[in-house]
Amino acid sequence: MAHASKTAVLVAGSWGTAIASVLAENGREVALWSRNAEQVREINENHRNSRFLGDAVLPQAIWATDQLKEAVDGAEAVVVVAPSSAMRSIAGQLRPHLDDKTLLIHATKGFEAGTLKRMSEVLADELPGYDSNRLVVLSGPSHAEEVIRQCPTTVVVASLDKDAAEQAQDLLINNSFRVYTNPDVVGVEVGGALKNIIALGAGLSDGLGFGDNAKAALLTRGLAEIARLGTAMGANPLTFAGLAGIGDLVVTCTSQHSRNWRAGSMLAQGLSLDEVLARMGMVVEGVKTTQAAFKLAEQYSIPMPITTELHHVLFDGKTPREAVEDLMGRGRTHEIEEIADSSQKGWFY
Amino acid sequence: MAHASKTAVLVAGSWGTAIASVLAENGREVALWSRNAEQVREINENHRNSRFLGDAVLPQAIWATDQLKEAVDGAEAVVVVAPSSAMRSIAGQLRPHLDDKTLLIHATKGFEAGTLKRMSEVLADELPGYDSNRLVVLSGPSHAEEVIRQCPTTVVVASLDKDAAEQAQDLLINNSFRVYTNPDVVGVEVGGALKNIIALGAGLSDGLGFGDNAKAALLTRGLAEIARLGTAMGANPLTFAGLAGIGDLVVTCTSQHSRNWRAGSMLAQGLSLDEVLARMGMVVEGVKTTQAAFKLAEQYSIPMPITTELHHVLFDGKTPREAVEDLMGRGRTHEIEEIADSSQKGWFY
Repeated sequence: MAHASKTAVLVAGSWGTAIASVLAENGREVALWSRNAEQVREINENHRNSRFLGDAVLPQAIWATDQLKEAVDGAEAVVVVAPSSAMRSIAGQLRPHLDDKTLLIHATKGFEAGTLKRMSEVLADELPGYDSNRLVVLSGPSHAEEVIRQCPTTVVVASLDKDAAEQAQDLLINNSFRVYTNPDVVGVEVGGALKNIIALGAGLSDGLGFGDNAKAALLTRGLAEIARLGTAMGANPLTFAGLAGIGDLVVTCTSQHSRNWRAGSMLAQGLSLDEVLARMGMVVEGVKTTQAAFKLAEQYSIPMPITTELHHVLFDGKTPREAVEDLMGRGRTHEIEEIADSSQKGWFY
Repeated sequence: MAHASKTAVLVAGSWGTAIASVLAENGREVALWSRNAEQVREINENHRNSRFLGDAVLPQAIWATDQLKEAVDGAEAVVVVAPSSAMRSIAGQLRPHLDDKTLLIHATKGFEAGTLKRMSEVLADELPGYDSNRLVVLSGPSHAEEVIRQCPTTVVVASLDKDAAEQAQDLLINNSFRVYTNPDVVGVEVGGALKNIIALGAGLSDGLGFGDNAKAALLTRGLAEIARLGTAMGANPLTFAGLAGIGDLVVTCTSQHSRNWRAGSMLAQGLSLDEVLARMGMVVEGVKTTQAAFKLAEQYSIPMPITTELHHVLFDGKTPREAVEDLMGRGRTHEIEEIADSSQKGWFY
């Protein structure tokens, strides 16, 4: 049975559940899909998703199911919030159930390992019947824990199709969740993915006790290298000055809610990457994103010194202290030349 | 008697004393000027400046004097780090003692009340014999407390004269204090001054318990309005993507070392502006800067919604909560249009 106001959210992680809550607050019925039967039961019976969101009580209008068809049937919009590594598989499962008039929104921050594709490219691959120009990307500075508590939050929805972006805006906007539209799909996806690298670096720097001055330098230089790569990949440099650029970078690097930050701070304490991943027990997108960005930087011939040093720490056994010292020890430079360097037009120009 | 490596620093506040420490670590003799006889005694006898820097022990090469002539005589460089309200008076006192070959560096973040002049303009007014093109401005994300402890820190030195900027870079650079040059004096001064407004706002937001998502939005929008005004005043928009822009903004808004952040958080708790200033006992540059920027925004016809709301809170009795709600409640918008809005070329373009 079709509900005019039904929305489906796949899957029931912390960010997916938070988006489901926003939709429910806005008067929508929300079907949350999870393959975990115990999680489905807990959401339906106790209105909680304790593994990801602790004691937070979810709105009654959210119900869970482990049947994808049941979740998606009759939905006016489907929101996909999956780990980047699961996106292709989930899109493939979604294919037989997705009506091509349904609005499709994704909120996943990362590249596909191996192919180095953006998430909207993966979705387009797997959903050939769907007009991928209408796909919407949601990003911005939005810790799930705060969205659940209705703390003031701003996000961006990007689509090549203005009507699709505005439809997503209408679905999600309310007094505590402000939604801006932006036509730059590439920039919004790249900004959201790459900030996780800098968050790992910020966790390293904080874990080493380097302080706020050092972290501010890392963010500044980090944003410059994100914008350099993004612009080379076709993004509008202005996007990096916005919520999906600076905004998301700041929130991820300065808040201890961030998994990437936590992973970086554990690395600084001397844990190996395997130990860190085992302790986290959740996906740490920044690790795979560092690998992807390192390859993309080579492919586009873009200098990315912070990404390069983190790659050495994660995969080549370089110590965090050596990496940060190498970053600090670069020669005397003119700032503007360094920001605008390389053969690109430079970022923000 | 002239010392080839003597530098004078005026005055002995927290940032002046931290810069003196960097110079001393770099092998310079540093004369620190203060009009407070007890502070002079404490620095000379105990190598401490406890009012501003607690228990931190200062290098032996720093000595203090209350005689300006004695501090400046024979110095190869004079660093002025005064509250913006004292800059004109100190420059006037410096005039008879300043050799026009001496390098002059200032590190004060603010505008002069009333005239709305930048600090380098005030210095040029009061030092007519000095080639103001050679004046150097020092700025960037640099909490004094961390610089004293030799935490990794990056700053920018800006001058219209490249040789002057490089001379300042040579004086100050070392392994934990990285110094970048930038020709954009206007941008570096404007970025350093205006970030204090956003830091006040960040303190307000945090004091109201709004969370990290809201603060990230405030920083993003704040940087956009800083860049809009700065570009109208003649700055290079790229400067705001650098250490004196994003970098300084991030460190000031996310660290509890910041006086402006602390003042904002006290306002959120319901204290009046007078009560906050009385409790701080130190200059809170952001308050006067909000007043100056509010007038500059009118003068240059630049929309500055955050500055405007803070002005209402500080001077018109608006409650912090109303101000933040009015900022959040603005209409549905396209992000890029909002960043690049107004009759200006837009920021970063």
